Amino acid sequence: MITRSPLAPAAFPALPAIAGVTLRVARARYKEWDRCDLTYVELAPGTTVAGVFTRNVCCSSEVELGREQVKGGAGRALIVNAGNSNAFTGYRGREAVEQIMGQVAEHLGCAPQEVFVSSTGVIGVPLPKDKARAGVAAALTAAPCSWEAAAETIGTTDTFAKGAAASAIVGDRTVHVAGIVKGSGMIAPDMATMLGYIFTDAAVAPALLQEMLSRATGGSFNSITVDSDTSTSDTVLLFATGQAGNPALASWDDAGADALYAAIRQVALDLAHQVVRDGEGASKFIEVRVTGAVSDESAKRVALAIANSPLVKTAIAGEDANWGRVVMAVGKAGEPADRDRLAIRFGDVWVAKDGLPVDGYDETPVAAHLKGRDVRIGADLRLGEGCATVWTCDLTHGYISINADYRS
Amino acid sequence: MITRSPLAPAAFPALPAIAGVTLRVARARYKEWDRCDLTYVELAPGTTVAGVFTRNVCCSSEVELGREQVKGGAGRALIVNAGNSNAFTGYRGREAVEQIMGQVAEHLGCAPQEVFVSSTGVIGVPLPKDKARAGVAAALTAAPCSWEAAAETIGTTDTFAKGAAASAIVGDRTVHVAGIVKGSGMIAPDMATMLGYIFTDAAVAPALLQEMLSRATGGSFNSITVDSDTSTSDTVLLFATGQAGNPALASWDDAGADALYAAIRQVALDLAHQVVRDGEGASKFIEVRVTGAVSDESAKRVALAIANSPLVKTAIAGEDANWGRVVMAVGKAGEPADRDRLAIRFGDVWVAKDGLPVDGYDETPVAAHLKGRDVRIGADLRLGEGCATVWTCDLTHGYISINADYRS
Repeated sequence: MITRSPLAPAAFPALPAIAGVTLRVARARYKEWDRCDLTYVELAPGTTVAGVFTRNVCCSSEVELGREQVKGGAGRALIVNAGNSNAFTGYRGREAVEQIMGQVAEHLGCAPQEVFVSSTGVIGVPLPKDKARAGVAAALTAAPCSWEAAAETIGTTDTFAKGAAASAIVGDRTVHVAGIVKGSGMIAPDMATMLGYIFTDAAVAPALLQEMLSRATGGSFNSITVDSDTSTSDTVLLFATGQAGNPALASWDDAGADALYAAIRQVALDLAHQVVRDGEGASKFIEVRVTGAVSDESAKRVALAIANSPLVKTAIAGEDANWGRVVMAVGKAGEPADRDRLAIRFGDVWVAKDGLPVDGYDETPVAAHLKGRDVRIGADLRLGEGCATVWTCDLTHGYISINADYRS
Repeated sequence: MITRSPLAPAAFPALPAIAGVTLRVARARYKEWDRCDLTYVELAPGTTVAGVFTRNVCCSSEVELGREQVKGGAGRALIVNAGNSNAFTGYRGREAVEQIMGQVAEHLGCAPQEVFVSSTGVIGVPLPKDKARAGVAAALTAAPCSWEAAAETIGTTDTFAKGAAASAIVGDRTVHVAGIVKGSGMIAPDMATMLGYIFTDAAVAPALLQEMLSRATGGSFNSITVDSDTSTSDTVLLFATGQAGNPALASWDDAGADALYAAIRQVALDLAHQVVRDGEGASKFIEVRVTGAVSDESAKRVALAIANSPLVKTAIAGEDANWGRVVMAVGKAGEPADRDRLAIRFGDVWVAKDGLPVDGYDETPVAAHLKGRDVRIGADLRLGEGCATVWTCDLTHGYISINADYRS
């Protein structure tokens, strides 16, 4: 049995209904379990879509198809299969996805290309077409369900359901943004897949919607890491139903575009943090902030080197103010850095500056900070203006138990 | 107490004496311990030297100085301090190294630049000059010791002493190569530092010696990984005393150069494998072989992506034939790969080909292979002729215990 992550929020948040978005779930029984494992989201005609996908070159058929589909800019439905990732299954896996697209399209009277499909779970086993057909049929006619039910149904080894919401003023309308995500719990012999779906009732042209999602993803879903491993199926989709009645946004200069973007970014960041808080075995949520790099890109690479370092992650698990490991990680990133200018911080306390331990360093406040659930690490390279923040979790016995002690 | 790695060899090997190499050890008491922690190697006049050093930009003073010293091509002595890495200690650390160089140079009547120094242990604490001075004084006059005693003395958290030897025919002489290495045990709150020293009685010009070491290192010390973290102090030095009496080798075309290189490479590979076999918490020695890449460089990057993947390493720890995680790691390497051509092997059994599980795949021989101490993973990308082999160990609870459960 999976115990709820100690870093989980107290409860699933209250998410607003999004006009034009109807959620339904059903049992496809992709695994030997008695739970809903197929999610169907119906979207009003006129819904626009944007997407970002894994950069893993061994991606699933769902990802290959999704990348092409978003170019059309229109989305009428989303199907998410849980329990079978359908990755590395060749033409048979692709046929299963195309079957689902056709079945839903027929029901809605739309083009198959407007039906988006994601799958998460075991790899190397083609998604069974018969179970998919029956599951989709059940979902198409199921009663609408809550955000929490949908968030639970897309999950696999997650220890808690993840959702977030925000709102913005666009023109004279209040528009809403709500999203759900799954990822980072991993008990079956699969990689953790992150699947995220964000919905808004605002009206937004597809090109601008894609820019908003790509920009929001850079500082959220693409700034988190649990174990440096990248799923073959990672997908984030953003749907805009246009039901709020605002004049459709088509440019960053349109009134309200910035406000909507801020709301989308807030939801994306909240969801991304929840993924880290459900990282396998996580006992600490870690923010890594790098400043003074030669560029933002360089800062992000240094921050990820710190966040992915097993030695840094185990030190935090051990509540050990081991700044030497942070120095090591900065140095191995392959980015410009000067050992004799570097400064390292835990919480708000600088422990090393100018390549030396700080004179009269008092470990007491640092030790207190490291005992908390939320830990902050800072590295100031003092070379330029570049900065970046990434988030990760610590590396504990729990990670090993989840990923090594299980036999497939 | 540290228990000997289950992957350790039965005993320290018999290493030949190398004419012109005299080993001595002493107690500098860099830590509160009662063991030898300072190694002094005296080298005959005329000894040539080559070196390779960490690429970590936050390197120690020892590494900065060593890089300059090898350009001189001559080495008369080596001092290795264990218990204090002297890294991230600014000008104070550099002064300590220069003091050691001066002290030994005065004793031998050589230039300080011919005295090489390495240090390994705690970071951020300047090497204490008084302890270093007394320790060096004791070592200079100590009785010569064995290879095993020297190998033990350079070690810090190693669970066994590591040595290797080989020989070659150069002209009408038999020349000998012997080496020792430390690394990959890590219990103190330090990064594991790898320090390796190889000695030969052959006569070799410095430029050729450097080429031999650089080439040998690529396929040995630079093809191993335990946790992807890179020490600030990693150093490998190769000394050639010229006492064997062969005509000095100055070019790859000289008779015997290839044979000597083969012996050096064999010793480097043996020592590198022993470092992996002492990896923190290691219970399996893993060979990752990538073939069919677009180039050897690309193959090595893919192999390292597999070898550094926490999900692959935990799967092997769990004796789980989880080829999906290998596919994931190939895909995340950022190198050319085609999911639908990829083949994955455990031991000698291909479990997936052409992007699909092999028909009629029988897991029995694979499961038997994974139960052994030595595990082999193969990935054939079927795109070109590039190939590479790297070595790593599995990721176990032992790694977490060593690196997280300890408090500094």
